[in-house]
Amino acid sequence: MPFDRRALLSGGLAAGVGANAAMAAPGGPDAPSLVHHVFFWLKSPGSRTDRDQLIAGLNALRGVEVVQQLHIGVPASTEKRDVVDNSYDVSELMVFKSVEDQKLYQDHPLHLKFVKDCAHLWAKVVVYDAITA
Amino acid sequence: MPFDRRALLSGGLAAGVGANAAMAAPGGPDAPSLVHHVFFWLKSPGSRTDRDQLIAGLNALRGVEVVQQLHIGVPASTEKRDVVDNSYDVSELMVFKSVEDQKLYQDHPLHLKFVKDCAHLWAKVVVYDAITA
Repeated sequence: MPFDRRALLSGGLAAGVGANAAMAAPGGPDAPSLVHHVFFWLKSPGSRTDRDQLIAGLNALRGVEVVQQLHIGVPASTEKRDVVDNSYDVSELMVFKSVEDQKLYQDHPLHLKFVKDCAHLWAKVVVYDAITA
Repeated sequence: MPFDRRALLSGGLAAGVGANAAMAAPGGPDAPSLVHHVFFWLKSPGSRTDRDQLIAGLNALRGVEVVQQLHIGVPASTEKRDVVDNSYDVSELMVFKSVEDQKLYQDHPLHLKFVKDCAHLWAKVVVYDAITA
């Protein structure tokens, strides 16, 4: 089956289309998505308190209007393989309509508050921004 | 607004809910998602041909039934920041219902064919598997 992003927009995901469903393209059938992948390594990797505080901080980012989708994760117990990096503590995956919306998010008061409140928790953060190929 | 994953399942994404929408939780309102983030660095970073071949190979993975969502990306022109790694060539983001479905994908003939056909193209691959926090 060919790639049909419109399946999602016409309710495909809600209907459980499954395979072949593309990520959301909120700007329209042919609009690209900006996917913002972020991985955090805590200063205190063993601290459940710090992890939960970071997760709570990330959840507050759902209030930023330009954030179309948000997934907050922790390392999954998938197979150990050389290519798999499960050393991070918390992951954040956001979908935006555009590079411009991602910039609006960076400058949004809720994001600035998140950085102010939580930046002391992490030792390292790695970001990958990807636009639909 | 509180986090309501059900908004998406009841058609929220199709209706353009935007902020507060969670990633798909195909297994049900309370089911976690397994997000499989993959970043590829080509052996020949400047080769558009190799990049397009890799992207075509990834697109063929839409035929794997357990793949709920797939986003194929390239580095976005977001702001240059120390934490942003835009040195990769192609990104792949997949959403599965579970760790088990991700294992089915790893062993699926279409995935094995992809590795066989495309592994010569990349110099490095990094995978982050994240389960809903």
